[in-house]
Amino acid sequence: MTPPRGRGSSAGGSQPPRGRRPGVAGPPRRGSPPGAPSRRGGRGALSGLGGEQVEGRHAVRELLATGSRRVRELLVADGMDPSALVTEILDLASAARVPVRRVSRARLDAAAATDAPQGVVARAEPLAEADLDDLARSVAGRSPFLLALDGVTDPHNLGALLRTAECAGATGAVLPRHRAVHVTPAVAKAAAGAIEHLPLAVVAGLPAALTQLRRAGVWTVGLDQDAEQSVYDLALGTEPVALVLGSEGSGLSRLALQRCDVAVHIPQRGSLPSLNVAAAGAVACFELARRRLG
Amino acid sequence: MTPPRGRGSSAGGSQPPRGRRPGVAGPPRRGSPPGAPSRRGGRGALSGLGGEQVEGRHAVRELLATGSRRVRELLVADGMDPSALVTEILDLASAARVPVRRVSRARLDAAAATDAPQGVVARAEPLAEADLDDLARSVAGRSPFLLALDGVTDPHNLGALLRTAECAGATGAVLPRHRAVHVTPAVAKAAAGAIEHLPLAVVAGLPAALTQLRRAGVWTVGLDQDAEQSVYDLALGTEPVALVLGSEGSGLSRLALQRCDVAVHIPQRGSLPSLNVAAAGAVACFELARRRLG
Repeated sequence: MTPPRGRGSSAGGSQPPRGRRPGVAGPPRRGSPPGAPSRRGGRGALSGLGGEQVEGRHAVRELLATGSRRVRELLVADGMDPSALVTEILDLASAARVPVRRVSRARLDAAAATDAPQGVVARAEPLAEADLDDLARSVAGRSPFLLALDGVTDPHNLGALLRTAECAGATGAVLPRHRAVHVTPAVAKAAAGAIEHLPLAVVAGLPAALTQLRRAGVWTVGLDQDAEQSVYDLALGTEPVALVLGSEGSGLSRLALQRCDVAVHIPQRGSLPSLNVAAAGAVACFELARRRLG
Repeated sequence: MTPPRGRGSSAGGSQPPRGRRPGVAGPPRRGSPPGAPSRRGGRGALSGLGGEQVEGRHAVRELLATGSRRVRELLVADGMDPSALVTEILDLASAARVPVRRVSRARLDAAAATDAPQGVVARAEPLAEADLDDLARSVAGRSPFLLALDGVTDPHNLGALLRTAECAGATGAVLPRHRAVHVTPAVAKAAAGAIEHLPLAVVAGLPAALTQLRRAGVWTVGLDQDAEQSVYDLALGTEPVALVLGSEGSGLSRLALQRCDVAVHIPQRGSLPSLNVAAAGAVACFELARRRLG
């Protein structure tokens, strides 16, 4: 069996279509050091994006450590086992003068919206939305590396994808407003702090946003198991890129797929028809990340 | 920054240590066709592995389609929206003469152990355990590609990892008996049918199992974020391999790590300290899969 090639009738299937051709990748760039959190676009108004309640130790630690938004209060369960992470959380809260309320475990669990808040619940200002045009620009030598989600509504998958994207070095995520996007406590917990680092743009519709990104020079890559080309054959290095994922049930919408520069699949070697969207996103994000380092 | 190299003091860091050296990868092998389900080791007795209750449409479909174990009954919620998948499930149940009970949605949800059984609950014989020695042997030209889990107890992560491994072409999984391994309905649902295809060996202790695998010629690769070598620098192609993952909280145990031929990390480019174990497993499984196809 030969490896899959690019869709459509153009020759040289491993090149993105439409005559645009990514430049030869330059020397690997490391981007900004891992310690430097990305900042919000600045102008983003407080919005319906959510994120006001943050539970789970990793998520709360990142919320306090980045200082990207005001934390109104921190609830901590009495009688927790000592842990370096809890000590760090309390030290960070103290340094930021965040009021800390010690409550019973039962009371904390009652205040929590997730099954396992791990003894900590923080209440914060809602997340600010980032501007899509800002996300399409290079910042501090990092060319845009975006994750665009079309209809991923399961909170665990959404949170897991944001965490994965942040770990892969993504510079932002794009979420459509009308497909139930809201950073609930379950999303925030699964994201494990990624929402404090990853700028999030909320758009009216994903197809229009993809057009806007393409006009700004961002390569849009749709993940679609029916695509002919493999993600491993993508001719992309350090170019600005947006990885576009659809919902688990129905995949990318036809319209979103049409607006992508190229569609790729992840080669499957087993009997099951498809990966979970969070796993597919992890494979694709890290394949793009690997290329960006050359 | 230079790419990470192998741990330990031996020269040629990208080669696994201990003088064993994987042979030069031959031509890519495709293994058996995707439609052919893997079979249990045969001698495996019915055990405490679980799997008796299967919920969720994809998981129930695979259970019925593979015919790898007897299904005692199928509960179906009345008044579901028509769906090709539900029709397929009912056809498969009819063909296999599985008794179908139509119950109210409330009754089905009461019988279910997961939050979203999607209108179907099947009750089956428990899963049979596979034999570790069998998993260490090539079957039908497929060299062993195993996933060994050391302490992954979260049912969503465990199920997701089994699904991912199956999609990556893994030939089996190894689970330690004493760290809460049990294929609960939540695991079965998250695995989306992978448990019907992927032989599962349950072992008394993972370190001893890793020694056994190494003696059988299987390369054991531990995933450890503190390892010096990157997963992308692994000198492995189509050799027999076991990918060893630890728990999210504490990672691989020291003993399990010591028993691995080589430890590798996944390069992180963001601010967060680590990937979720299911995402890390997806990246590593598919990196190994990519190499196995050449």
